[in-house]
Amino acid sequence: MNQTRINRVLKQMEERGMDHLIISDPSSIDYLIGYDNHPGERMYALLLSLDGNHTLFLNRLFYLDQELDLDIVWYADIEDGPAKIAEKLQNGHVVGVDKNWEAKFLMRVMELASEECCFELGSICVDYVRMHKDEHEIELMRKSSLLNDQAIDQVIQLCAKGMLTEKQIGLQLDGIFQSLGCSGISFEPIIGYGPNGADGHHGCDDSTLKPGDSIVIDMGGLYQGYCSDMTRTVFYKEVSEKQREVYELVKKANETAETMIKPGVRLCDIDKAARDVISKAGYGPNFNHRLGHFIGKDVHEYGDVSASFDMEVQPGMIFSIEPGIYIQGEFGVRIEDLVLVTEDGCEVLNQYSKDLMIIG
Amino acid sequence: MNQTRINRVLKQMEERGMDHLIISDPSSIDYLIGYDNHPGERMYALLLSLDGNHTLFLNRLFYLDQELDLDIVWYADIEDGPAKIAEKLQNGHVVGVDKNWEAKFLMRVMELASEECCFELGSICVDYVRMHKDEHEIELMRKSSLLNDQAIDQVIQLCAKGMLTEKQIGLQLDGIFQSLGCSGISFEPIIGYGPNGADGHHGCDDSTLKPGDSIVIDMGGLYQGYCSDMTRTVFYKEVSEKQREVYELVKKANETAETMIKPGVRLCDIDKAARDVISKAGYGPNFNHRLGHFIGKDVHEYGDVSASFDMEVQPGMIFSIEPGIYIQGEFGVRIEDLVLVTEDGCEVLNQYSKDLMIIG
Repeated sequence: MNQTRINRVLKQMEERGMDHLIISDPSSIDYLIGYDNHPGERMYALLLSLDGNHTLFLNRLFYLDQELDLDIVWYADIEDGPAKIAEKLQNGHVVGVDKNWEAKFLMRVMELASEECCFELGSICVDYVRMHKDEHEIELMRKSSLLNDQAIDQVIQLCAKGMLTEKQIGLQLDGIFQSLGCSGISFEPIIGYGPNGADGHHGCDDSTLKPGDSIVIDMGGLYQGYCSDMTRTVFYKEVSEKQREVYELVKKANETAETMIKPGVRLCDIDKAARDVISKAGYGPNFNHRLGHFIGKDVHEYGDVSASFDMEVQPGMIFSIEPGIYIQGEFGVRIEDLVLVTEDGCEVLNQYSKDLMIIG
Repeated sequence: MNQTRINRVLKQMEERGMDHLIISDPSSIDYLIGYDNHPGERMYALLLSLDGNHTLFLNRLFYLDQELDLDIVWYADIEDGPAKIAEKLQNGHVVGVDKNWEAKFLMRVMELASEECCFELGSICVDYVRMHKDEHEIELMRKSSLLNDQAIDQVIQLCAKGMLTEKQIGLQLDGIFQSLGCSGISFEPIIGYGPNGADGHHGCDDSTLKPGDSIVIDMGGLYQGYCSDMTRTVFYKEVSEKQREVYELVKKANETAETMIKPGVRLCDIDKAARDVISKAGYGPNFNHRLGHFIGKDVHEYGDVSASFDMEVQPGMIFSIEPGIYIQGEFGVRIEDLVLVTEDGCEVLNQYSKDLMIIG
């Protein structure tokens, strides 16, 4: 158990009036007790209690090869796992619940628990702690992004040859990251040629490159359990005036946001500043997603850089800044870095050039 | 929309007394309306209503490039998606909820919906329909397993060379399946050498083969959206008496189960028959998981072959039969086929030999 982290979560629970907290997110559990389990569809939960008696609920199928300094309740596939959690809630009054917990477990626990129990969303207690990276995490995040800078350079060189499909490049990423010392990719990459780059969640298909195509490359690796995530957009052989205009706008939006980040600035205002750059040029509707997301052990962690998220940034926070403009049927441009909030500003974790690049 | 499938779901809702059903499983939505969307962490839901007015809730970020014959409610990242669902439930009294729906959406809808609404788990309505494959699905499942038979033969030949680590073999699977016409793997394969094969959920690591190692190979591909899944265990260069005994027991458990499958037999009794074979030989505690799971568009679909699942099998059901014996620190054996229940028995979809095989 990482008692320092657990204590920070207990403090959050106390401040928010919860006496119990059900944590089901495997990353959060790993973060708190150092056990990295992949439960698949089976119930997996860490129950934290303000009284200091914490319990981990494990299916007998899970493989535990380490000592854990807390109570463990094992259950078999044929047993009612949620009932075992409900038993522990006899004295629980306000029970926080993980935001991603599945209805099949939650509704069963709610049905079986003492009538005095009141359930509410509670994962914010862990998420808030995870938003503030400690020194060890910051070092790993720095290294992870440094390796992503190196990896994207290899990908851009592969693209420059002009011979490979999006999918053929995408399939090489795992190997590229492994050769750099990562365990692999942190998410399925997006390699979007031409019009494919205008689809914000395009993966990789069999498209081939044509002169004048933009290439959106959104990729990340996993280094010692910590994720990187960056996007660069380059152009194959030639670039039109419209593409150049859009590229410079996106770059300006990215840099405007990064320049203003320091403790005390609200995340929604960072989003607005970047969005204003794009909107004023008439491309507002073409930037159809939030400016960024928090990241760490997971690629998408709790916390947005968006109009709906008015938290102030604080030292130790790490999130993405990724404005984009998407012209359906034509092309897309997105430029994304990870940034770390420091005492008096921010450190951009990606150093790879953002100057307009024509390759091939 | 696939009106036939939707009508079958509506019939289930009616029989179970639900007037609305919130479906969030992307596979189930694709199954019902033919739209294959990957929502990530964003809210995505199909609301079916007994009155025939169905609604799909979509984030503006999602890419919809087809006509859908139902109402669509779009929402942006900065809007309250669950509130839009709650609005539609003003007249809803019994609302079924997807078993995997996340607490962050469910609890918000429950908070905002009319007080007359009563929420309960409802995905069984879709899951029950998906358990019974139609002719088109059966053809795709047959083909998918046929290709898995061919793929595992290539994997066993790679293992026989004795030069590759588990991970090196695992990384080739995607390409093997693609060369056979599949879109890729249907799940991360398990290649377990020696003691690693005793860990039921071991993936692939850097282990190398030693003479006398068992090799557990659990793999599957995705063919036109339908999954295969099979396991074979082979031995490298030599096999001990104990390994041979365990292998023959697992094979007998597998065949005992497959022989008894026909409409009317209960799934729990199939589990028991296989388990009895293993328990009578003293290895009961070493078979620590259910005998099988249903499969189709997803590798794990609703429905177990286990002691806790007493449904009778019916024609059109497809599930796995995968007994195993795991000797911690030594070796593991698992043998898995997919079976299709027919009018008077079952068709084993995997034809690859189950005779004890020594390779290398």
